[in-house]
Amino acid sequence: MMLATDLDDGRVVYLNGQKLAQPSKETMFVKTLAYVNAYYRLQQERPKTHLYTEGDQQYDLVFKTPQTAADLTAKRHVYQDIAIESYGMLGRTPDFIDSGIPVFAAHTEFLGHNQYTDFSANAKAYCDRIKGNDVFVSHALQNPQIDRSKALHEISKGATGVKATKVTSEGIYVSGAKMVNTLAPLSNELLIFNTPTLTTGDDDYALAFWLPINAEGLKVICRKPFDRPDHSEFDYPLSNAFDEIDAYIVFEDVFIPWPQVFVFQDVEKSNRFFIESGLFQHTMLQDQARGSVKLEFVTSLAIELAQRLGVDKYLNVQEMLGNLTANLELVRGALVNAELTGALDNAGVFGPSIQPLLAIRAQLPKMYGDALTTIQKLGAGSMMGVPDGRDFDGELGPVLDEMLSSNLMSAEYRSRLLNLSWDVTGESFGQRQLMYEYYHGGDPVRIRAQHYHDEDLHVGNEMLKRILK
Amino acid sequence: MMLATDLDDGRVVYLNGQKLAQPSKETMFVKTLAYVNAYYRLQQERPKTHLYTEGDQQYDLVFKTPQTAADLTAKRHVYQDIAIESYGMLGRTPDFIDSGIPVFAAHTEFLGHNQYTDFSANAKAYCDRIKGNDVFVSHALQNPQIDRSKALHEISKGATGVKATKVTSEGIYVSGAKMVNTLAPLSNELLIFNTPTLTTGDDDYALAFWLPINAEGLKVICRKPFDRPDHSEFDYPLSNAFDEIDAYIVFEDVFIPWPQVFVFQDVEKSNRFFIESGLFQHTMLQDQARGSVKLEFVTSLAIELAQRLGVDKYLNVQEMLGNLTANLELVRGALVNAELTGALDNAGVFGPSIQPLLAIRAQLPKMYGDALTTIQKLGAGSMMGVPDGRDFDGELGPVLDEMLSSNLMSAEYRSRLLNLSWDVTGESFGQRQLMYEYYHGGDPVRIRAQHYHDEDLHVGNEMLKRILK
Amino acid sequence: MMLATDLDDGRVVYLNGQKLAQPSKETMFVKTLAYVNAYYRLQQERPKTHLYTEGDQQYDLVFKTPQTAADLTAKRHVYQDIAIESYGMLGRTPDFIDSGIPVFAAHTEFLGHNQYTDFSANAKAYCDRIKGNDVFVSHALQNPQIDRSKALHEISKGATGVKATKVTSEGIYVSGAKMVNTLAPLSNELLIFNTPTLTTGDDDYALAFWLPINAEGLKVICRKPFDRPDHSEFDYPLSNAFDEIDAYIVFEDVFIPWPQVFVFQDVEKSNRFFIESGLFQHTMLQDQARGSVKLEFVTSLAIELAQRLGVDKYLNVQEMLGNLTANLELVRGALVNAELTGALDNAGVFGPSIQPLLAIRAQLPKMYGDALTTIQKLGAGSMMGVPDGRDFDGELGPVLDEMLSSNLMSAEYRSRLLNLSWDVTGESFGQRQLMYEYYHGGDPVRIRAQHYHDEDLHVGNEMLKRILK
Amino acid sequence: MMLATDLDDGRVVYLNGQKLAQPSKETMFVKTLAYVNAYYRLQQERPKTHLYTEGDQQYDLVFKTPQTAADLTAKRHVYQDIAIESYGMLGRTPDFIDSGIPVFAAHTEFLGHNQYTDFSANAKAYCDRIKGNDVFVSHALQNPQIDRSKALHEISKGATGVKATKVTSEGIYVSGAKMVNTLAPLSNELLIFNTPTLTTGDDDYALAFWLPINAEGLKVICRKPFDRPDHSEFDYPLSNAFDEIDAYIVFEDVFIPWPQVFVFQDVEKSNRFFIESGLFQHTMLQDQARGSVKLEFVTSLAIELAQRLGVDKYLNVQEMLGNLTANLELVRGALVNAELTGALDNAGVFGPSIQPLLAIRAQLPKMYGDALTTIQKLGAGSMMGVPDGRDFDGELGPVLDEMLSSNLMSAEYRSRLLNLSWDVTGESFGQRQLMYEYYHGGDPVRIRAQHYHDEDLHVGNEMLKRILK
Repeated sequence: MMLATDLDDGRVVYLNGQKLAQPSKETMFVKTLAYVNAYYRLQQERPKTHLYTEGDQQYDLVFKTPQTAADLTAKRHVYQDIAIESYGMLGRTPDFIDSGIPVFAAHTEFLGHNQYTDFSANAKAYCDRIKGNDVFVSHALQNPQIDRSKALHEISKGATGVKATKVTSEGIYVSGAKMVNTLAPLSNELLIFNTPTLTTGDDDYALAFWLPINAEGLKVICRKPFDRPDHSEFDYPLSNAFDEIDAYIVFEDVFIPWPQVFVFQDVEKSNRFFIESGLFQHTMLQDQARGSVKLEFVTSLAIELAQRLGVDKYLNVQEMLGNLTANLELVRGALVNAELTGALDNAGVFGPSIQPLLAIRAQLPKMYGDALTTIQKLGAGSMMGVPDGRDFDGELGPVLDEMLSSNLMSAEYRSRLLNLSWDVTGESFGQRQLMYEYYHGGDPVRIRAQHYHDEDLHVGNEMLKRILK
Repeated sequence: MMLATDLDDGRVVYLNGQKLAQPSKETMFVKTLAYVNAYYRLQQERPKTHLYTEGDQQYDLVFKTPQTAADLTAKRHVYQDIAIESYGMLGRTPDFIDSGIPVFAAHTEFLGHNQYTDFSANAKAYCDRIKGNDVFVSHALQNPQIDRSKALHEISKGATGVKATKVTSEGIYVSGAKMVNTLAPLSNELLIFNTPTLTTGDDDYALAFWLPINAEGLKVICRKPFDRPDHSEFDYPLSNAFDEIDAYIVFEDVFIPWPQVFVFQDVEKSNRFFIESGLFQHTMLQDQARGSVKLEFVTSLAIELAQRLGVDKYLNVQEMLGNLTANLELVRGALVNAELTGALDNAGVFGPSIQPLLAIRAQLPKMYGDALTTIQKLGAGSMMGVPDGRDFDGELGPVLDEMLSSNLMSAEYRSRLLNLSWDVTGESFGQRQLMYEYYHGGDPVRIRAQHYHDEDLHVGNEMLKRILK
Repeated sequence: MMLATDLDDGRVVYLNGQKLAQPSKETMFVKTLAYVNAYYRLQQERPKTHLYTEGDQQYDLVFKTPQTAADLTAKRHVYQDIAIESYGMLGRTPDFIDSGIPVFAAHTEFLGHNQYTDFSANAKAYCDRIKGNDVFVSHALQNPQIDRSKALHEISKGATGVKATKVTSEGIYVSGAKMVNTLAPLSNELLIFNTPTLTTGDDDYALAFWLPINAEGLKVICRKPFDRPDHSEFDYPLSNAFDEIDAYIVFEDVFIPWPQVFVFQDVEKSNRFFIESGLFQHTMLQDQARGSVKLEFVTSLAIELAQRLGVDKYLNVQEMLGNLTANLELVRGALVNAELTGALDNAGVFGPSIQPLLAIRAQLPKMYGDALTTIQKLGAGSMMGVPDGRDFDGELGPVLDEMLSSNLMSAEYRSRLLNLSWDVTGESFGQRQLMYEYYHGGDPVRIRAQHYHDEDLHVGNEMLKRILK
Repeated sequence: MMLATDLDDGRVVYLNGQKLAQPSKETMFVKTLAYVNAYYRLQQERPKTHLYTEGDQQYDLVFKTPQTAADLTAKRHVYQDIAIESYGMLGRTPDFIDSGIPVFAAHTEFLGHNQYTDFSANAKAYCDRIKGNDVFVSHALQNPQIDRSKALHEISKGATGVKATKVTSEGIYVSGAKMVNTLAPLSNELLIFNTPTLTTGDDDYALAFWLPINAEGLKVICRKPFDRPDHSEFDYPLSNAFDEIDAYIVFEDVFIPWPQVFVFQDVEKSNRFFIESGLFQHTMLQDQARGSVKLEFVTSLAIELAQRLGVDKYLNVQEMLGNLTANLELVRGALVNAELTGALDNAGVFGPSIQPLLAIRAQLPKMYGDALTTIQKLGAGSMMGVPDGRDFDGELGPVLDEMLSSNLMSAEYRSRLLNLSWDVTGESFGQRQLMYEYYHGGDPVRIRAQHYHDEDLHVGNEMLKRILK
């Protein structure tokens, strides 16, 4: 079931220094929404692979509770299908959070209750509703980095997160901010929680809850957009096609009724939320599946560029390209292995192995960066020599067509190819995509640090014990 | 003496898909020209260091024929002064070519003559005029990369350079194209030549000459500009301040009178031109001096960012910063050493050592890239969380001021700092600057290959001989 | 069935500048042979996994013709079991060539025949005999690098390979040399062929054949050994435990009867031999399985070292360790994926996918190098501060025991751990192991170049086509 | 004046698990001492550059108090001359400490005195004696790394440094250990102090003093030697030529008379000692001068290897070589700049700038590693294919001579060149040299961290201020 997103539902969105009277009139919002909606469109176009039946209803396959490795693989193909629509460059399409919803539904026990509400029941109801209505949820977990040398509660100035300011029997009031809330202005609802980094004393920040994007007191402040409104998609095939839109979200005494709350002033539960809800484990598969699509896209681009510029015959270029394809193969294997070596959890949900997925997350940013660097090395100055698309249509057209054609490609194809190469490596769209790979999953330094702790090394350790006697 | 640049002198410039009726009305041209003109302005502001007297006239110091290491050092300080004005980010200010003019004047012999003209005399007259009028010369040496697997004359389709199409007793007619001609639309004249890469059979391309930018048949086609016209310099402190403007230059049967020609259909002389004119050696010092300023700028930025975000207390951050400052020190030393170990050439001109300068050229791109990577690692998501500058002025102002301030910096300073960090690393302006460092001096792979051939290793080789008996 | 290797069968082996009268008396040969023989020993200790029955006989599982992915996985476990015995550091144990034997047996057709012999039949008989007798075959493919700027036949001086010098109806005479023939002096037989790099004119070198190691005219010249005979395994736990022994093999008019010949003066077949025999594809799985064991060994060592030196609490150390475990996970996934996505070939043999295996081969050397670098960074000066093992036994014992103990480990364990760390990173044993990973599979630059050609990028290419219209 | 080192002066030295009855009979000690003594020999061979006259006596130039940049340059040439003798691979020749002696002599004031002795006077007398007798001093500053997560005094087990155990009016008694004391067994005396890393509570460890190497209660325990006693210098041109010999030094109630003490139980002065004595600044110049020689040696080797194997015609090889020569140029420039931009200190001593020197120290390890990696990539398997040197002398001689010769080099030269390449990259000698570059100057992470704090960035900071308004 697909939900039409009504961007004019009263949500308060700032863009380009203005409060938008009618968000639905923003060209870039509309274009981006079309890419997001591929999630819903594919349900209709490929129901056999994208839908499944439960009871008498059909749902997107990502809501299915996985019980075998094959279930995970089927879901992964859905994630990849969706990612392909945006070349892997929309990170937070609806399937991201959705992938975790059936798992969260099975793991709400730990949330417990307080005097006002049953957090566990709230969560169950939440999951049912998201699934039933196929809601587009955007999540906000990152707190603004105001002073990274201190714990949240130690910082005396600035908004360092969202905190509870008042409690009533009806609900709570929250104020503060979250940052880099991707796709927020196009979503239906927000899911607010923290990464497991809170420390003693951070109680007021230790919250998890949901709210509609048009909640009273909520302001969505978009970062500066990346599109080039004076140019075409010919010139900027990605920047002018869509924008994932990161937003700074301001909460001013926003009221959250108790049924929308999952964690309240509880540092320990806030820190357990992301992991024990299963959200981390299952969104991780979606995330790496998407990442693999994106890596394949830029890998293909690098090879095409090398061939069309006539440099693929050089051994050093071939090596650079082989580095990219080898990396891609490693990522593919880790995805398959994560599914194959998954396991049933205590609630009977089959989850992927974390270690192969975390390995992708740890190494893919560098691999993606390698691809961009390769593209820049190949395109080099040629990317700076592409005339404006409109030049081809005017009086310059014939001369440019003649001068910029080669036996390897036409002047038009050359422009498209070089424009794409620059868009993906040199434009803010492309660099933000690189940053996204590095940071959206958390500090990559900590991701690696986490990986080493949990690695199964029993074979290595036995060898070590033997040789050290 | 300073020459006012008249942009409306009939030059044919295309920008944003249009032939400009009045180039002087283009905001970005005007802004950029002001930065270029710092070269002339500094002559007035600091005559003691920027001017010298010869005969009864004063010239910019860069025109002085160096005769000692101290002369080179004085000129280098001038290059750096000029570079500081644009944070090292205008690579082709007038001093670039000017630095080589007095040297070229002393090395014109090798050009010889043909039946129509005396190339050597042409060159001498050219140098005198450039110096006498302090002309702003832009040079174009890079040929369009149409098919990099072939020599110029082997490529049957597309414009692969500028070639002679007709010869008369008055002069020659040339057609074709040059690419990435930086700052061309703002210059007075173009100096056209090739890098030393022509091969047998490329005779028609083997030319060197000058022409005014408003020559009949010359079209200057600007690449897409990097500025963000809907935003302020607050949001984009560099992108919206100036643009070095790379251009694709089209020649359609352009007439070049013989007195403007230096090399004609002579592969050997074309290949000797850049080196033996002294242009390579002396522009190289200007180039590395400018590069050092740019490297210092981003180094300072990385450190400021680390301190204001409160992460400079972490050892791994300190190490990243120390890597940058250590690199900067190495560059500084090589500059000094190039001057100190320079030598008088056969014409009595004191030239810098090439090897230290080429070493900077070989390694600075990676160093500069390290700085950008460091800035991106530090700024990370925070750079994606900066509201539009206008948000601070409107109704959101007070709440943003409060929420985004810290004890380490005000909300405004934070925005400026993060905006600059993103501009220099994530915007097309910044990425083009990175590409510039990698490629403006030629293929960095070949720069290194060239370096090894000429290195003085007599101490190492003697040790080797001893141990290998 | 296990074959006892008789080292004193007349083989001509040079070691330490001497022709060995009795190779079986060489301590390092004996020790190493024991590690090699683990291949046979495991058949007896774990017959359920290491043996299979065909007809009425039992064979090592590596000789089984794989027909499913599960077959490959079972064989891979055997490869890993064998590798574990030597910490992955014996590359050329019998299972290496054996893994390809059943495949070669099914792909001999292409070898054809000449007037003297049926190459195809020779190959079949060969495979039957190797399998039937479980022979330890060492293979020699690498030609001595005398002048890498020329083709074999263009080099006028020195031995650049093995070439045919005379032909009779009985067989051929060969002379010349092969280099880096690992474990040769301990083997029963040699299999001689070339990598697919011969060019027109190299006909005399275009051979493939086998011969016993004690063939008349064959000389096995060992490189200088890595052991430290004046020290114990306490001091050098790897260097003094075994040595894979690379040898330079000299052929002086060695007679090879026709039944031992597979390719004769045929550049095209010589170039097809390694690939079309199936040897490349199936030994590749053995090789990467072994590589994964070795990578796990050094990963475990790095972690143990960090923990025992008390540095594992530092985030930057944790990151280095996480980099290693993430790499290991990627390798594991690629192994699994190679088996899963394998396919039946035209002879009904199920072979692993080459691309995931080649990806490991392309990237594992760097990963292994990362592990060594990490160990060196952690061990640093402490590895230089370990007293001789005998110091602990003598008068110094008590004081060293006291001074070098910590709450994290005893003085003895500390010495063992640091000695191993140095052995694997700083001794010639360890550095040769690093070189082995880089070069045993061929020039890593070419491995990557090869990888890019064959990668399945249909998803990426479709996305590319879509966006480039 | 040269001091003959008497190795049999009662010093207690352990080597290969034995207490040496007569150290002077150890071949490796004798050979190494000859390399160390080059310091003295050069005084005789090149008195004009290596000696200077003060009063009526001649001293090694390294003892001269520098008063100008030219003085530093002259001394640097002496350091390089001495380093050339051992290819830059003896780090702690006498000139290392000597370079700091005249500076220390001028900066003893800060040491003060206590009730028993005048530390300042002790230091002055010490400097006079070292200079007067040209003593070979080895210094020991590194404390054993027993538990790197704790401060010295917090570690309850094991020897974590040298500490005072008893005090009398005659002197102090010390016990404990120092590690990686390079060349100690060949020296006359030890200078004992700490790096500036002690913290409150470490008082007992806060000492600085000197003692003769044959002091009662001192034990010098050598690490396992790197030579290959069963082989020749033909096979191991470096490993078998000399060994810098790192030692673990044990102190058991060693008595140190007060006149030998410079710092006593004073954490603050212990932490100031290395810097304020001037030892750090001036030994740093010696150290980087030596490092530059070593870098040039391996750079020359890499180039020779490429040329003789016939691979220098490949562009990717040329690039690798150019990377090495470019790095070398940067180091050379920094050395020159350190001298040129040095300054007179408050005692009238002209000292080199620290920042350029520290920059070399920060980056040279990676550069040196690049050179080794390049050599390994070029030598690859060929290094594993070199027969034992004795093989060339025996019956194999003629065949090896023939087979291993090429038009690019003889079989003998080939062996020498590949043996050296392996020795410097793959043998423990070579790897220890790599480790030495990384760690002898302290943790390279901290070296970089220190560099960033002190860098002069006023130009960068002014640009930053301007653009951030």
